[in-house]
Amino acid sequence: MKIYNFSAGPAMLPEDVMKIAQAEFCDFKGSGSGLIELSHRGKQFTEVIERAEANVRELMGISEDYAVLFIQGGASMQFAMLAMNLLGDKTADYADTGVWSNKAYKEAANLGKARIVCSSKEDKYAYIPEFSKWEATPADAAYLHITSNNTVAGTQYRVFPKVDVPLIADMSSDIMSRVVNVNDFGMIYAGAQKNLGPSGMALVIMRKDLLEREPANLPTMLKYSTYVDNDSLYNTPPTFAIYLLALVTDWIKANGGVAGVEKLNDAKAAKLYDYLDSTSYYTTPVQKDSRSRMNVVWRLPSEELDAKFVKEATAAGLTQLKGHRIVGGCRASIYNAMPMAGVEALIDFMREFEKNNG
Amino acid sequence: MKIYNFSAGPAMLPEDVMKIAQAEFCDFKGSGSGLIELSHRGKQFTEVIERAEANVRELMGISEDYAVLFIQGGASMQFAMLAMNLLGDKTADYADTGVWSNKAYKEAANLGKARIVCSSKEDKYAYIPEFSKWEATPADAAYLHITSNNTVAGTQYRVFPKVDVPLIADMSSDIMSRVVNVNDFGMIYAGAQKNLGPSGMALVIMRKDLLEREPANLPTMLKYSTYVDNDSLYNTPPTFAIYLLALVTDWIKANGGVAGVEKLNDAKAAKLYDYLDSTSYYTTPVQKDSRSRMNVVWRLPSEELDAKFVKEATAAGLTQLKGHRIVGGCRASIYNAMPMAGVEALIDFMREFEKNNG
Repeated sequence: MKIYNFSAGPAMLPEDVMKIAQAEFCDFKGSGSGLIELSHRGKQFTEVIERAEANVRELMGISEDYAVLFIQGGASMQFAMLAMNLLGDKTADYADTGVWSNKAYKEAANLGKARIVCSSKEDKYAYIPEFSKWEATPADAAYLHITSNNTVAGTQYRVFPKVDVPLIADMSSDIMSRVVNVNDFGMIYAGAQKNLGPSGMALVIMRKDLLEREPANLPTMLKYSTYVDNDSLYNTPPTFAIYLLALVTDWIKANGGVAGVEKLNDAKAAKLYDYLDSTSYYTTPVQKDSRSRMNVVWRLPSEELDAKFVKEATAAGLTQLKGHRIVGGCRASIYNAMPMAGVEALIDFMREFEKNNG
Repeated sequence: MKIYNFSAGPAMLPEDVMKIAQAEFCDFKGSGSGLIELSHRGKQFTEVIERAEANVRELMGISEDYAVLFIQGGASMQFAMLAMNLLGDKTADYADTGVWSNKAYKEAANLGKARIVCSSKEDKYAYIPEFSKWEATPADAAYLHITSNNTVAGTQYRVFPKVDVPLIADMSSDIMSRVVNVNDFGMIYAGAQKNLGPSGMALVIMRKDLLEREPANLPTMLKYSTYVDNDSLYNTPPTFAIYLLALVTDWIKANGGVAGVEKLNDAKAAKLYDYLDSTSYYTTPVQKDSRSRMNVVWRLPSEELDAKFVKEATAAGLTQLKGHRIVGGCRASIYNAMPMAGVEALIDFMREFEKNNG
């Protein structure tokens, strides 16, 4: 039976990438050792990390004004690390559009001054508040922080706010799924485990002039300058995660680049939302203009049916469809690696399930 | 050609472990997905992380008084994190026995009060200073920090100091290679990439009463209590590294436990040092009573011969024998996974090389 894995993260990776990683797992390019067994300072891994960075730069159109960094700890570590490095005595503004953006805000508020400039929390984060209604970010704010895609609530920014301070975006769940202009951001960061590879690493893209804000005496591993000055090789980096990121970005390049995968992502999401709009059996709480193209959430007429749906879908080879434990319901994460056939199989199953349980 | 990989880390893993990980890479136990594609909250990964912790507890004889934690960032992150959590207003004592212990000291000194109680730096770290000659650690010190094995210099503690404050040991390069009494330590930590799995994670074993020292307002990801309270699952952990650690510890259990691999480690190291002692062509700078059973270092009569040796050994399938860039020369890392046959092949090659170049 063909399995389609709709996990929100760690998530499915491209089948071709998994096959390459498996084939060379025990013998990386004739070295007689697996990549994970090789020194991070040897020529084999040097080629891998250089390719990973070059791929990221090429795919996202990143200029030399920005550093591209690989940092352990995931996005959760970045919530604190970015505030430690960039906040100083100023106030940072946060858009509260979901549980992760709220966590990011709390880490900054714990370390210094932070304020929430908009929130859809009262409405269960069912939409991205319209930018014109946000509290204005003053020119002396440290930065404005947004979460470009909200994995739990299933919402996503269509356009990004324009402000006079560095815009910082947690793009964990939609990085490289859509074309963005990196020059519009002071910093972009993303946990790898959705669109880039396995868990255990964050990709950080940072405008280099922001490094000047770094306070004295931060611990070595918590300073961005450590990663910039050492090409992310100050200590032993997570070599396997960087290797998978290199393979995944090779795959994106071979599939039309970010614009190519975006086109497919648009088509996949349109097909699923069109189906959801065509039936009243499944309902999605997300406001139309805020719908995520990465994480599609819906409910059935009852919690019992939600559970039955997830169970029977799993048996039919459509796995990991349970909604996040905070909100319940169902969720299909359709990141770059999910083929159109997976979305079609899901819709077929949903039709059949409604017929049998409607 | 059979390859023996003597890398100091990331290092070779047991052949059986690599084969299992490869075999189930794309389909973990019939799930239809690879382990790296599965949710960290699903039943498959839950079994893995629980097994990893249970194995560590069983192999090292760890009581419930201690927490067993998996933390991203490696030992370098622990240098800062342990000081942030445990130092308070007190002074921490550090034994300076190598480049890594020195880095650990510097991170603590940057964050608070730390002092060096012994050092072999003037002698190029060629030995572990005799404990009776260390400056005494007062009862009000925060802790005493040691590095149980020094990967670069090739030295290792035979016995551990006894003090009235928590003893903290960086065991990155000899964890689970020898039987230790965990109850003698307040905290043990180790980067995974030598004896436990791939890079990208530290194993932390901490006496739970030390958690009471945690200052208020530390960032969430930098507090040990976050990992204790959430079974290392506050955020998405490095699932692949934890999985490999589970497989490696399964393998140690199947090979006589830590006592079993220690016996083999002793025999491997004895054979290599006996050979080094039998010839004056190769010289090791390490004092006899401080010799590491994990990292064996030596030099040839000239730097040119060092380089020639490394090059020809690589061609003969004995890879990664170059000494650390700080000290030069040659180094064979013979962690748990290195079979006796690898050490024998190395000695055979060394004999032959001396014959041809002596």
